[in-house]
Amino acid sequence: MRIAIDAMGGDAGPRAVVQGAAAAVQAWPGLSIDLFGPRDQLQTELMSLPRHLAVAGSRLFVRHAPETIRQDQRPSDALRRGGDTSMAHMLAHVAEGGAMAGVSAGNTGALMALARRELGMVAGIPRPAICTAIPTRGDGRCYLLDLGANVDADAERLVDFAHMGDIMARHVDGLGAPRVALLNVGSEGTKGSATVREADAWLSESEALNYRGFIEGDGIFAGAADVVVCDGFVGNAVLKASEGLARMLIERVQATFESHWSSRLVGVLARPALRRLKGELDPVRYNGASLLGLDGIVIKSHGSADATGFSYAVLRAAQEVSRDLPARLARELGARQHRTQQE
Amino acid sequence: MRIAIDAMGGDAGPRAVVQGAAAAVQAWPGLSIDLFGPRDQLQTELMSLPRHLAVAGSRLFVRHAPETIRQDQRPSDALRRGGDTSMAHMLAHVAEGGAMAGVSAGNTGALMALARRELGMVAGIPRPAICTAIPTRGDGRCYLLDLGANVDADAERLVDFAHMGDIMARHVDGLGAPRVALLNVGSEGTKGSATVREADAWLSESEALNYRGFIEGDGIFAGAADVVVCDGFVGNAVLKASEGLARMLIERVQATFESHWSSRLVGVLARPALRRLKGELDPVRYNGASLLGLDGIVIKSHGSADATGFSYAVLRAAQEVSRDLPARLARELGARQHRTQQE
Repeated sequence: MRIAIDAMGGDAGPRAVVQGAAAAVQAWPGLSIDLFGPRDQLQTELMSLPRHLAVAGSRLFVRHAPETIRQDQRPSDALRRGGDTSMAHMLAHVAEGGAMAGVSAGNTGALMALARRELGMVAGIPRPAICTAIPTRGDGRCYLLDLGANVDADAERLVDFAHMGDIMARHVDGLGAPRVALLNVGSEGTKGSATVREADAWLSESEALNYRGFIEGDGIFAGAADVVVCDGFVGNAVLKASEGLARMLIERVQATFESHWSSRLVGVLARPALRRLKGELDPVRYNGASLLGLDGIVIKSHGSADATGFSYAVLRAAQEVSRDLPARLARELGARQHRTQQE
Repeated sequence: MRIAIDAMGGDAGPRAVVQGAAAAVQAWPGLSIDLFGPRDQLQTELMSLPRHLAVAGSRLFVRHAPETIRQDQRPSDALRRGGDTSMAHMLAHVAEGGAMAGVSAGNTGALMALARRELGMVAGIPRPAICTAIPTRGDGRCYLLDLGANVDADAERLVDFAHMGDIMARHVDGLGAPRVALLNVGSEGTKGSATVREADAWLSESEALNYRGFIEGDGIFAGAADVVVCDGFVGNAVLKASEGLARMLIERVQATFESHWSSRLVGVLARPALRRLKGELDPVRYNGASLLGLDGIVIKSHGSADATGFSYAVLRAAQEVSRDLPARLARELGARQHRTQQE
């Protein structure tokens, strides 16, 4: 299996990306990676891989791309002028079949626009939805979508999201009948905006989905559903607020132990548990987000992901490749569209 | 100062409410409270107040109201049939001047509808906005509104929210020029829905506000603004998701210490710190929410608040009374409306 990576997207430069790619290669047997970016810079990073990752270097290949998409660059500008960037070269490589999936930690809007142009969409989906797995109570997970690509999603788009999330949960996670829910301000049918009520009516008629109706925000983390659907504005606000809250709580946990546990003994004993906690308390940052609806696999990693976080995004891509996600999306969404047209 | 309380609204019955009222009376010198609910039931709760709260009993007065608004009752039904309920009697008492503020942990929709009818609105605000103070990094706080009352808020409503939040932060918290921000999916002016971009254009022209432009979800908890404005759908989703995440993280903190700290010594030493943490990790649940725009003060407490949580909601009401919030809202929003009409 071969995956293409835009090595220049991360907030902290290519080091975390290259190390994350190396870690993913070690974790997934048979995986090779093409790294896109300025050749000299990437060669330098490969040469300075830490010793425990150095052996992975033989399965990492540098592909030269001189330019970089800026974080503040507009999608329209990326489409016009971004042709020689690491992101565009990476996506073109995927489109040509040189790799089976692409990963970037760069500008989300540019990634969506370029990916849509290079790879195209499946089954009449007009633009990708961004989808990530959120950790839930009891070590579960829940797919939340859309996370910002479709700011004004109408009822039809929400129904698309429900089906795409369902396909993801069935084929990538192997769930038999994923519980699908629609995010709303209350669980009663009379509440919420006209758009969610319309989508609810359509979803309630669907026999293909295990649709469970409305869910409120706290239900996401409670594990009450396997797929939660909302428009991109709401999903983005929920995801980013959750990241901010997790960061604040980590600081409070640390401050609590530092201020009250003056005893040196206890401080030393607490340290390993606190380290573990720090990872567990920042769960929303540690998954790649899938751009669903493309005729191909593209994963967006968090811009501030460290090497471990980036490696998870690459492994996410590998998982979707191994389950042949785009073909399943095309087949099942296409069949649904066909049925709808016949009605 | 006298405050009226709907004693029957909480999920767990009147005990937490009565104990919370007693705790508030002890914390705020000169405060008396009228408790609305079935007389016998409330008398029983007053007789069984824990010893450290018993002395407060002399400033708690039972007012008989035989019925209760159900949690699943529709606002329209509450308006038609809710006349003899503890919530309606409490609000009528405030409207008649028998108390200066009202507090309920009951059905939010019914509370808004009944409060609007009993108290009326100020300065042409069509319906209340729900607003609460969210804790931020560095022991700060940030007012977030609306939290669910205005599911389809247009740009004009978002501008109202900005002004109401500003008045709240200036007069209740004593901030000189509160930083006001608009929640969006990106911080660039070109991003987001048409509604937020329109509101942004209006707010940017306002000389009365210290308007800082767009903020993303993680900015709320980062303390980047003192007032964050969004429509009720988004605010509700963000607040409830944050509650759900906080609950999940508390469980993980506990599980981490229980699973890894087998040593009995460390377990015993850790217990007090963990207890403190539990309170600090659930910050979103511990504030009453204000129904802003009413011609009077009404605070909604969390339905699942315990006695401590409910006492905070009562103290919030007392604080708004002491700063004369409705008169300031009427004056400043009225002056703004007058200016807008002249233009």
